[in-house]
Amino acid sequence: MDYSKFIARASEVFRASEIRELLKVVEARKVISFTGGYPDPQTFPRESLAKIAYEVIVNYGDRALQYSPTKGVTVFRQTLIKYLKDKDVKVSKEDDIIVTTGSQQGLDLISRTLIDPGDYIVTENPTYLAALTAFRTARPNVVGVPIDEWGMRTEVLEEKLRNLESSGRRVKFVYTIPIAHNPAGTTMSPERKKHLLELASQYDFIVIEDDPYSFFVYDEADVTRLKTLDSEGRVVYLSTMSKVLSPGIRVGWILGPQQLIDLFERAKQSADLHTPTLSQYIAKEAIEKGVVSETVEKARKIYRVKRDAILSALSENMVENSWWVKPVGGLFLMVWLPPEIDTREMLPTAIDEGVAYVPGAPFFVDESGRNTMRLNFSYPSIEEIRSGIEILGRIVRRKLGR
Amino acid sequence: MDYSKFIARASEVFRASEIRELLKVVEARKVISFTGGYPDPQTFPRESLAKIAYEVIVNYGDRALQYSPTKGVTVFRQTLIKYLKDKDVKVSKEDDIIVTTGSQQGLDLISRTLIDPGDYIVTENPTYLAALTAFRTARPNVVGVPIDEWGMRTEVLEEKLRNLESSGRRVKFVYTIPIAHNPAGTTMSPERKKHLLELASQYDFIVIEDDPYSFFVYDEADVTRLKTLDSEGRVVYLSTMSKVLSPGIRVGWILGPQQLIDLFERAKQSADLHTPTLSQYIAKEAIEKGVVSETVEKARKIYRVKRDAILSALSENMVENSWWVKPVGGLFLMVWLPPEIDTREMLPTAIDEGVAYVPGAPFFVDESGRNTMRLNFSYPSIEEIRSGIEILGRIVRRKLGR
Repeated sequence: MDYSKFIARASEVFRASEIRELLKVVEARKVISFTGGYPDPQTFPRESLAKIAYEVIVNYGDRALQYSPTKGVTVFRQTLIKYLKDKDVKVSKEDDIIVTTGSQQGLDLISRTLIDPGDYIVTENPTYLAALTAFRTARPNVVGVPIDEWGMRTEVLEEKLRNLESSGRRVKFVYTIPIAHNPAGTTMSPERKKHLLELASQYDFIVIEDDPYSFFVYDEADVTRLKTLDSEGRVVYLSTMSKVLSPGIRVGWILGPQQLIDLFERAKQSADLHTPTLSQYIAKEAIEKGVVSETVEKARKIYRVKRDAILSALSENMVENSWWVKPVGGLFLMVWLPPEIDTREMLPTAIDEGVAYVPGAPFFVDESGRNTMRLNFSYPSIEEIRSGIEILGRIVRRKLGR
Repeated sequence: MDYSKFIARASEVFRASEIRELLKVVEARKVISFTGGYPDPQTFPRESLAKIAYEVIVNYGDRALQYSPTKGVTVFRQTLIKYLKDKDVKVSKEDDIIVTTGSQQGLDLISRTLIDPGDYIVTENPTYLAALTAFRTARPNVVGVPIDEWGMRTEVLEEKLRNLESSGRRVKFVYTIPIAHNPAGTTMSPERKKHLLELASQYDFIVIEDDPYSFFVYDEADVTRLKTLDSEGRVVYLSTMSKVLSPGIRVGWILGPQQLIDLFERAKQSADLHTPTLSQYIAKEAIEKGVVSETVEKARKIYRVKRDAILSALSENMVENSWWVKPVGGLFLMVWLPPEIDTREMLPTAIDEGVAYVPGAPFFVDESGRNTMRLNFSYPSIEEIRSGIEILGRIVRRKLGR
């Protein structure tokens, strides 16, 4: 039978990603991959989590295997709030928290509830691709604000806000990854954080702060969250257990004003009823028994060495007029190559020669950044990082005829 | 700050449920509850699942704690396909399968991809409330078809299809729970299944078959699935591990034509990346090690006795002119009371006297069925079932002045 007439609109909304298809091919081949956002499985606390899972099921199985509230298991939400407060994330009396099926679901719930078709929203340019994809299903106008080594250029944001206002348009929210940005690796300066919140107040918009990485930075860095600096209830704060424990259990959360969290709860009710109860009990025990802290310490050491390895390799192998930022944390950095290079065009060659990366253009709201690539440094080994970057350097030089 | 202008549309789409709020109050009080759709925790294979979880994490932790494909863990999908084939669910060469975060997510993905605003879709009247809620977020026109003890009255469906066609309207899909219907407890007769598929072919629509219950019926019953009878690739088949293993791990699936599954995959990518990897590995081992079969055998025995208990209690205590069906499986039945009774109005009295149920009207597309209530018989104990139904009978007689 012919399904096309049933799915015409949806096929347009949920488009197949050319890059995703290409990278599926990569998985089957033996190449050095800088593509994923995968934690190094060395960091997984297998023995501890195995014991926790066993004990949770034996001791609390009646609850841990049962349906649970849409907002999340109550005792886990309490543990999370305490954890966040301990890490200097401000939780105010007007706030509430909802557990999500990974923080991807947080982005989806925000998209489904806060965006009306035609709304104006702002993101960094580049920004996290999966956020862009989730937001776009609600058909907003996305305005990109460029970044530099201090994160979002808020003076450009201000100008854009002014222009939008003068043409009668308002911005609903600004989405930002202030610390250890994905894909760019940048961290927002304290001045810009302050400026962003001033603009939020002046132009009356919400700030969506996506913060998967601040809990395990590698250097001394100011990780003060926008949520903590906010005094007007404008910040909706997302984070996740994916990088500090395990992505495979799919536990994220949104912390924010009660009224918005209640709305997210109603949307989640219809989306998947609730996040797996077992995952929440495991995460709760892992926080309380210090397993998260141990994982973070381990991850920090492993990733710092890998981050330093990719930075040296880039310095040694990349041509002049390339640019990247030293990330204080996270799993990624982005390399801007000379404008003659088209990284999408270059990818098949790279794969043939044994290396894969993610071309940068899709991370850009306007599909600019054709000369950029996102590199993940958490998953490949040190040896792979060294030889992978060497191969990439060689290909780029050849393309440039140097 | 004032959030209302940010969420005006969404507050309309994702409405707070009055009944849900009322039932939240119930949880805090000590009443006999026929409200939930909770499996009896006695059925949970705690020891076996605890061991499986431990071994999965120790032996395959690198994979089980890691990100995994959006369509589901490949080895689990293979296990599922084999399981379904063993249970006589037809899996054709043109089919594919996607693992969902509970079958609620399956309903949500279908809503987001198959329904365009204004589309006509059909459900049984009454139907599963959470399906109705999920579908309505996409703003379709929902047409309800009445049921009797043999399930959906397909001759009424045919008439409605004819009328819609004559006014130039087409139905996109028919959603049905053929076996052990929630809320009504009915099972579709073989003749009606055949008729439904003939109509699907004639009027060119898709059939969404929601089948959480056929794997553990209590009596001899014909559980042949529409999916198995379908020869045109019209049936999209949903099921779940929730009732045959544990709802708390949130593992459901959709089996259907590849082209539709690929679309669901793209929508799920943006919704939550993937269903928890750990849950999928646990479900895989539980199927392969026979833990699911054992759970089903245990559940079948427990629920049969409870079902028989509620049926006797109803016969003894309900007034004349009440109607219900003996369910061959599932966790629910619906009682139609005399038309003078409004079950929503009666609920506070019932709660005061120690019993809670779900008023039936919201399960009806047209909010009819004000004289109905849904009763869950899997969660309360036999003793609770007996005294709960006795109390309900008394209240109804009092309301009727008998």
